[in-house]
Amino acid sequence: MIKREHGIYSSERMVTYVDAIFAIALTLLVIEIKIPEHADGDNLIMTLWQEWPKFISFLISFMIISVVWFNHHTMFHYIKKIDHTLILMNTILMLNVIAIPFCSSILGEYADAVGENSKVAALIYGGWITLGGIPFNFIWSYALKHKELLHDGCDMDDLINMKKHFIRGPYIYLFVTLLALLNAWVSVVGFAFLIILYFLPATFWIRKEKRNPL
Amino acid sequence: MIKREHGIYSSERMVTYVDAIFAIALTLLVIEIKIPEHADGDNLIMTLWQEWPKFISFLISFMIISVVWFNHHTMFHYIKKIDHTLILMNTILMLNVIAIPFCSSILGEYADAVGENSKVAALIYGGWITLGGIPFNFIWSYALKHKELLHDGCDMDDLINMKKHFIRGPYIYLFVTLLALLNAWVSVVGFAFLIILYFLPATFWIRKEKRNPL
Amino acid sequence: MIKREHGIYSSERMVTYVDAIFAIALTLLVIEIKIPEHADGDNLIMTLWQEWPKFISFLISFMIISVVWFNHHTMFHYIKKIDHTLILMNTILMLNVIAIPFCSSILGEYADAVGENSKVAALIYGGWITLGGIPFNFIWSYALKHKELLHDGCDMDDLINMKKHFIRGPYIYLFVTLLALLNAWVSVVGFAFLIILYFLPATFWIRKEKRNPL
Amino acid sequence: MIKREHGIYSSERMVTYVDAIFAIALTLLVIEIKIPEHADGDNLIMTLWQEWPKFISFLISFMIISVVWFNHHTMFHYIKKIDHTLILMNTILMLNVIAIPFCSSILGEYADAVGENSKVAALIYGGWITLGGIPFNFIWSYALKHKELLHDGCDMDDLINMKKHFIRGPYIYLFVTLLALLNAWVSVVGFAFLIILYFLPATFWIRKEKRNPL
Repeated sequence: MIKREHGIYSSERMVTYVDAIFAIALTLLVIEIKIPEHADGDNLIMTLWQEWPKFISFLISFMIISVVWFNHHTMFHYIKKIDHTLILMNTILMLNVIAIPFCSSILGEYADAVGENSKVAALIYGGWITLGGIPFNFIWSYALKHKELLHDGCDMDDLINMKKHFIRGPYIYLFVTLLALLNAWVSVVGFAFLIILYFLPATFWIRKEKRNPL
Repeated sequence: MIKREHGIYSSERMVTYVDAIFAIALTLLVIEIKIPEHADGDNLIMTLWQEWPKFISFLISFMIISVVWFNHHTMFHYIKKIDHTLILMNTILMLNVIAIPFCSSILGEYADAVGENSKVAALIYGGWITLGGIPFNFIWSYALKHKELLHDGCDMDDLINMKKHFIRGPYIYLFVTLLALLNAWVSVVGFAFLIILYFLPATFWIRKEKRNPL
Repeated sequence: MIKREHGIYSSERMVTYVDAIFAIALTLLVIEIKIPEHADGDNLIMTLWQEWPKFISFLISFMIISVVWFNHHTMFHYIKKIDHTLILMNTILMLNVIAIPFCSSILGEYADAVGENSKVAALIYGGWITLGGIPFNFIWSYALKHKELLHDGCDMDDLINMKKHFIRGPYIYLFVTLLALLNAWVSVVGFAFLIILYFLPATFWIRKEKRNPL
Repeated sequence: MIKREHGIYSSERMVTYVDAIFAIALTLLVIEIKIPEHADGDNLIMTLWQEWPKFISFLISFMIISVVWFNHHTMFHYIKKIDHTLILMNTILMLNVIAIPFCSSILGEYADAVGENSKVAALIYGGWITLGGIPFNFIWSYALKHKELLHDGCDMDDLINMKKHFIRGPYIYLFVTLLALLNAWVSVVGFAFLIILYFLPATFWIRKEKRNPL
């Protein structure tokens, strides 16, 4: 008979919940892309072509949310149990994730605007993504400090390397965000570049580090 | 060979379903926030600034739904099986949860309106949240009365303390709702304050009570 | 080592998928209810009051979808494995469920229209609900004929009583739908009445029948 | 004590996530269908009748997404573990799935347009569906090459037959897409026909092939 611990829960239900939120955030991205009502004499290809900033911001946001999901997946591959603090931090991370489509719609609407608006849009977008790194890193640091929350049989060296890897995220994102001060699109291209780099799994870098320890 | 009991189900499937509904309710909150179409000469920062009542009502509703999810999570940490009555009560709770975004959009649209409208909006919002406490408390009371629905190894003292804690919820929410009779924003600030207090886990208070039983 | 059977799957994944679809169908109902943009001099209570047909159709549709979910839940309490035919039938049931919000929005928009439109709206609504009974009953009949798909330890008498109970559904729904030929609201009230009756669990009637077999 | 492997995850969480995305994609299809606001003197039946291209594209897209879900389900009936490459490929597949409703809305809006627009709409729609076959087939080929990712007890002959079956998909879809060069509706009817054929389960064909190996 397993005693139901008070205030300590299996991470399983939270993970299901989180996955639904991630999936819905992806969906909200699509809702933002709308084709105009069909009118006589319009040209579908031109109509779609004019929407290109929205497609770009959709694509980048889709990949960023997927990256965050993937990293969240990686963390909860090791985290078995959650307590009140982890739930609170996770709630704040979800607040961040669920508002990404809104920021993405701002970027899609204003990225090719004249004047300061395009820079402001890119700063809001990048700034929001960057902020998400704070609860993310907090979750991982907290879990590493409370080993009773982790699965048995974790290789702590791996986990500490992951921490070093994750902690760099917000700094890099902040840098790419600030590129928007030059031009909104420089920042957007920066994010596209980061996604390509970042989707190389954390584990790949870590293993390399472990293989070449000297 | 385990006999499939008639009319008694594992709580697992319902919990997955409920999580999807909670996740979607959070999403509906975001859909309510829309940026106006971009027009020449507008200023993005000002445009967003004018939407501040919507952001406030989004944030508070997000946190309230998260709190309800968290408490639901806590209850079903202990509830292993469900019967027809629990499913019916849970359906009514879900009816409440899923309509919160609608009430939130009313609050966001009317909170800074002149005249009686802002008070009415805050009363509808708070009143709806308060009503949600009824099926919520019913579920927990019912589960405590039908111990065959609970997991083995529950500490009944903990669960009874949780009940005492949960039962206070609707009364406090009602009080904060009625503050809207003074001014809509007094009630909104009250809810913000409650969220901060309430997110301290039930378990924290309970443990304190147990630690100082004299 | 368990052999992975070809063409026979655990029902578990389909159930998760189905739950997400049900949860989203509920959500779509809410999206249909929109408050008009706030204008100076309007009165929030009156604005909401004028939306009452939408609230009624939301409430009834919410409960109907919940009833279908509950009955689906009951069926898959016993169905352990699925094959290609069950997946196809379930897909058609999901097609029905996911379009209920669309029918509900037609009802909400036209229920208080003058002339034939209100009757047509109620006939479309009720007719669509009725059609959903076909794949539903097919799933259950098929499962009862293929006992290898059921969990071990099912009491076949219970399941056959459930079948008798479920099979009545479409006939009753058809009758209530046709009441719309008199007046749209007679049919709507009929559905409200059915929900109250129907939410009494299948198991309740069955047990009564078993208790009084003479 | 099971060692938590680095970079190798259970496929379970990804499957839940994927199911939520599929379910939401189905939903987005419904959102695209909107009834016009009710006006005096309009006729509901005529109003709905004029929307028929939207209903057709909804129905076909619903069935296509269901087919992809079903095939995804079949693949992950055998795939037990996922690594970084599978997650990346799955992300790209999800990018495809989640944008199908957008393509479907283009088809629904333009399918009965005059001039080139209807052909362009059908080419975009079919082309996007066809593209989805690439990550889909990649996932299955990759899994077959990395047998450590599969469940124990898989019959490799079955899986290789599935591969042969899946690989034909994109070619057939491409052919049906190109029929749009003649007329948009020829392509649409072609897709309807494919769905009927394709929903006959992979397993059915494979078994036939196994039964008649000479």
